[in-house]
Amino acid sequence: MSDLPSLPAGFSAAGLHCGIKSNPSVFDLCLFVSDRPASLAGVFTQNKVCGAPVKISRQRVPRATGRAVVINSGNSNACTGDRGNADAAWMTEQTAAAINCAAEDVVVCSTGIIGHFLPKDVIEAGIPAVAGQLATTPEAFHNAARGMMTTDTFAKQATRTLDIGGTTVNVSAAAKGAAMIGPNMATMLGVVMTDAAITPEEADTMLRHAVDRSFNCISVEGHTSTSDTVFLFANGAAGHSELDDESRAALQAVIDEVTMEMAQAIIRDAEGADHFVIIDVEGARTRDEAHCIAKAIANGALVKTAITGADPNWGRIVSAAGYSGVEMAEDEISLLINDVLIYEEGAPTEYDEAALSQSIRDNRDVSIKLLLTHGDGSVRFWTSDLTAEYVRLNSEYTT
Amino acid sequence: MSDLPSLPAGFSAAGLHCGIKSNPSVFDLCLFVSDRPASLAGVFTQNKVCGAPVKISRQRVPRATGRAVVINSGNSNACTGDRGNADAAWMTEQTAAAINCAAEDVVVCSTGIIGHFLPKDVIEAGIPAVAGQLATTPEAFHNAARGMMTTDTFAKQATRTLDIGGTTVNVSAAAKGAAMIGPNMATMLGVVMTDAAITPEEADTMLRHAVDRSFNCISVEGHTSTSDTVFLFANGAAGHSELDDESRAALQAVIDEVTMEMAQAIIRDAEGADHFVIIDVEGARTRDEAHCIAKAIANGALVKTAITGADPNWGRIVSAAGYSGVEMAEDEISLLINDVLIYEEGAPTEYDEAALSQSIRDNRDVSIKLLLTHGDGSVRFWTSDLTAEYVRLNSEYTT
Repeated sequence: MSDLPSLPAGFSAAGLHCGIKSNPSVFDLCLFVSDRPASLAGVFTQNKVCGAPVKISRQRVPRATGRAVVINSGNSNACTGDRGNADAAWMTEQTAAAINCAAEDVVVCSTGIIGHFLPKDVIEAGIPAVAGQLATTPEAFHNAARGMMTTDTFAKQATRTLDIGGTTVNVSAAAKGAAMIGPNMATMLGVVMTDAAITPEEADTMLRHAVDRSFNCISVEGHTSTSDTVFLFANGAAGHSELDDESRAALQAVIDEVTMEMAQAIIRDAEGADHFVIIDVEGARTRDEAHCIAKAIANGALVKTAITGADPNWGRIVSAAGYSGVEMAEDEISLLINDVLIYEEGAPTEYDEAALSQSIRDNRDVSIKLLLTHGDGSVRFWTSDLTAEYVRLNSEYTT
Repeated sequence: MSDLPSLPAGFSAAGLHCGIKSNPSVFDLCLFVSDRPASLAGVFTQNKVCGAPVKISRQRVPRATGRAVVINSGNSNACTGDRGNADAAWMTEQTAAAINCAAEDVVVCSTGIIGHFLPKDVIEAGIPAVAGQLATTPEAFHNAARGMMTTDTFAKQATRTLDIGGTTVNVSAAAKGAAMIGPNMATMLGVVMTDAAITPEEADTMLRHAVDRSFNCISVEGHTSTSDTVFLFANGAAGHSELDDESRAALQAVIDEVTMEMAQAIIRDAEGADHFVIIDVEGARTRDEAHCIAKAIANGALVKTAITGADPNWGRIVSAAGYSGVEMAEDEISLLINDVLIYEEGAPTEYDEAALSQSIRDNRDVSIKLLLTHGDGSVRFWTSDLTAEYVRLNSEYTT
């Protein structure tokens, strides 16, 4: 297990099966803890209908004294009213008691079926148990990543280091998500940890920057979950010299990298998907316009099914860009698939359709690049294709 | 053929195979003509990438002297640049010559594969041929409706009458559309004709009112085509007395009815669909907010697959409403499926899940009703479910 990602200094983690899920070999509870107060920032779902853990956690960030996040899978504690809110707060109290800190310094996530109350008895026993297994090892980190999985087929973790004034600084992340195909829905959760020293405000800014370029640039079917949450803990345990502009930018770049790796792992795990699709939009007026176009392409059922069918169907892609709401004219648009120019400034090109179709069929990764002539706004976005298997998975489940 | 819908007074129509499509038994050209100048209004796709016929026709409405619309299927004349624009204008000139009017009094639609130039030779011979078959009979009307079909499995037509001051006034419509599953994409086209006398401005207002409640309230996969177009011709041939507020409202109601019947026919013809889904959103602050919520539900892949699976999955529906962008809280939301209350003011109800699932499985029509507590804004929206067959149809086609 020596190739497992490691935790930054001052962080411990654990995961286990406490009994929320019926299968005793499947983990359903985990804990990530900083041994000292950490700058803590959070980014949450935009859905107006959101889970109780989102409501509780949102009130507690950004803060300077973050200590832990407790996460259960198998039950999202969403659409559960006042009792759900009380249960989410109770989970932070139980965790605080187990690790000896204030409840307000703990945040919480829940993912799984919605509209059911948490099974408090098994969680009440589970929290001290998982706290008792906290360790700084890669194995403990891996167990924690397993504890947040729902329909994921693999645990998603990443780690990177950077040098700040001669000191090694670590950034690690764990995430879960595999399209909204589970019992009711699956959620995207992420925990980013670093032993760098930054203020809560810096943590908030850096996390938003990273999420904008990673979790906000992926889409399976465009369904925004009720529970999506990403946290950043920064505890300063590395003991590096004060950040200057250059080292701050380097830290941001590494945080961006690990969140992008997590986001891509979610798309690679998208259930039923045959293809991993990388959408680049370049030459837009702004990054926002590029993002809007990329999202329209990524969410287009006709684009997705064209990829599934290995069909270099520029009409579906260009018309999805056209309905994104961004002002554009045909002769300002060019399109490449797998680096083959198939549509140039408003007109189809001559190219080898059979060869391009074969290259889509033969490779899991597909590149779609839409070039505009408006400016230098660009974005990279990731999505999956739409297969009959996706429909089967999502239509065969019955509540 | 006596039960075929009829044309209003002063209108003739025709349809035939001219050779755009390879199968000689499939029609690909049609013409609808008013024997006198008609008030003519049009509503077009919002897609920034639009076909040449949209660009040409948009410049010509509203007008007081509309005479005809010429429509071909099999080729959308979209993404074809300056040559495409010239070809679309040329089609109106050829039609004007054949029926003896000004080219500016003719509008044009094309639907079918995009990015290919029109085969002008067969259209040049086809336009005088179809003009030569113009007739006022139900059979001629039916042939015209056939001439605009692409992947449609049946011709879509409707007719209604109303009484204005003792005079019978007729409103008839033809439309095509069956999801965007054809070669590249299929389009929604509609032609509404009435022998009522209204000004071009009234025609424009009435058409927009009707389209807002019909074609703008349907969705198969949310892909806005490059060529969507609906026209209203009103030629006054009925010879009724002057419209008052009451008779104007009655005419509006009938125009709404025929467009709604066309819109629903398109959803009933949605390829691969097992269910016809009626979404009512009531109690919203405004009709726009209700529309926004209904559209988010209708376009939700997880909602569609739940219906395919006969799963009364309120979590997917309520969370789709939550990400629509409209402000709402859980306890302001109630949900009924097939008139069974399954979610009431933020909490799931006790109901017979097995019986409700069976009722979804046993009936092609499914009703989803979302009730809010915000105001009296409401909308009715129609969509289809998402099946493995839809994916197969859309992924197996290769350009």
